[in-house]
Amino acid sequence: MQQLFTRVSVIGVGMIGASLGRALLSRKLAGEVVGFDAAPAVLETAQALGAISRSASSLEECVFGAQLIVLATPVGTAVSLLPEVSGLAAAGSIISDVCSTKKQIVQLAETLPDGVSFVGGHPMAGSEKDGCQALNEKLFEQAVYVLTPVKDGDPSALVTMKKLVRRLGAEPLVLEAGEHDELAGAVSHLPHLAAVALVRSLERRTEQRQKFLFLAAGGFRDTTRVAMGNPEMWKDICLSNRENIAKLLTDYIKELEHLRLLTLSGNEEALDGAFRLARDFRRQFRARAEELPQPGRFI
Amino acid sequence: MQQLFTRVSVIGVGMIGASLGRALLSRKLAGEVVGFDAAPAVLETAQALGAISRSASSLEECVFGAQLIVLATPVGTAVSLLPEVSGLAAAGSIISDVCSTKKQIVQLAETLPDGVSFVGGHPMAGSEKDGCQALNEKLFEQAVYVLTPVKDGDPSALVTMKKLVRRLGAEPLVLEAGEHDELAGAVSHLPHLAAVALVRSLERRTEQRQKFLFLAAGGFRDTTRVAMGNPEMWKDICLSNRENIAKLLTDYIKELEHLRLLTLSGNEEALDGAFRLARDFRRQFRARAEELPQPGRFI
Repeated sequence: MQQLFTRVSVIGVGMIGASLGRALLSRKLAGEVVGFDAAPAVLETAQALGAISRSASSLEECVFGAQLIVLATPVGTAVSLLPEVSGLAAAGSIISDVCSTKKQIVQLAETLPDGVSFVGGHPMAGSEKDGCQALNEKLFEQAVYVLTPVKDGDPSALVTMKKLVRRLGAEPLVLEAGEHDELAGAVSHLPHLAAVALVRSLERRTEQRQKFLFLAAGGFRDTTRVAMGNPEMWKDICLSNRENIAKLLTDYIKELEHLRLLTLSGNEEALDGAFRLARDFRRQFRARAEELPQPGRFI
Repeated sequence: MQQLFTRVSVIGVGMIGASLGRALLSRKLAGEVVGFDAAPAVLETAQALGAISRSASSLEECVFGAQLIVLATPVGTAVSLLPEVSGLAAAGSIISDVCSTKKQIVQLAETLPDGVSFVGGHPMAGSEKDGCQALNEKLFEQAVYVLTPVKDGDPSALVTMKKLVRRLGAEPLVLEAGEHDELAGAVSHLPHLAAVALVRSLERRTEQRQKFLFLAAGGFRDTTRVAMGNPEMWKDICLSNRENIAKLLTDYIKELEHLRLLTLSGNEEALDGAFRLARDFRRQFRARAEELPQPGRFI
């Protein structure tokens, strides 16, 4: 397959950055992947795992000569690095990111001087696992990979990014950053907070904790698995998508309140209907992986 | 291995009843398993799948001559069948159930005439999958299997049930029925309602539904998988454990409200701490399967 970039920089070699680096290398989409991380020890591991071709000891060295620079850090860090990175980037290069919220970084990118192109990215794939050891070069296969262009951005940068996403085995979906944050709030951030709150409300029952550990089965483990995710990343997501998340939580609380009242009043018919509706809607999600829609379906 | 019963009746041959029947037969714990179901067509399938040795065309025929009778229906049905079943059961036999709530059925069992023994049962294993086709004879292996005796019950019936549970590869845990319902409320019923409310609050956003279906990834699917569970069973669970569930939902809503306020106010330190606490407590559950505690730890 044809190489897309001679050099790609990956800034932040955690689970996503390392998975991306390795997928770029094993699919021969990049001639080399240069990694940089705030924790230099990570870079040795990443290189040993084939996630990067070589490591850089500074941001400047990492970015030098790359046609694509990917910020693969929590969103707060990505936002604080973007101005410097865009100053260091070669003319004509593309900067992207893999963060779970897009509005804040896209708005910042729109204020950057001309010369480099920014295209936001969010692969809708992940794991509660942390760190480059958890890399999975197949992470992007069959995943939806959202791209959020900046206003009046270079259309050719978006074309290149779409091509990259397809070559990673993923499905590109171009969304306006604000719409992305609403949708990701609902399908990712809200479920995360729901799981975290579940775990926390059990943790508070100190006298029953040991028995919870003994009794909890697969249902509990599935429902709360995401609560093991990286705290810094999730703190950043909450901060950068706070209005959407607050609104989604308000509606979620109303729904819980509704189910609480149906339970307390013993409304059999309404409870049965509520569970049926949830089951039927949830079943539609089960089928999705087998029936990926046509590219560009929402564009 | 030594046979424990010459004949076992399974009333209700859904996923749990069929899994139990097949485990009893394949482990040679029962000479035969006789099945009865409100939907007679199920019985043919169950027999073909090796979940029952033969089917009965009436409750009376099913119960006749059995040393163990297991009610494997939703709890509302089990409660309504128990008086009749106990009238039909042979003297000295044991009646058990597999329902997710225990107080209601145990209280009823305490009012039954002498001659048969009731020991409540709740295998802490399951699936969102319905019906005898979803049977899994390994379902009970490594699972915790709660037993809830009646007040002043025959101790030898409890001994027999513990032996059965161990022979199924599960870990017996004897609990008072009320305590079971509190604990199961927290580790199973609350997570279920949290997942159902998540799915319902997305379903309400009719204009975004199609995009949710496209964007939702593994995190959403894990968190909401249980919402595909059997509506009738879950309606019955809510009705029979309503006070515990209502109280747990109230506390859960408070926790969500707390996270909402931290998000809205952008309290970085508190959000980070909240996520860390949840991650650390949740990680303790991950390890459980590998380190089953000693039998009788809570007794």
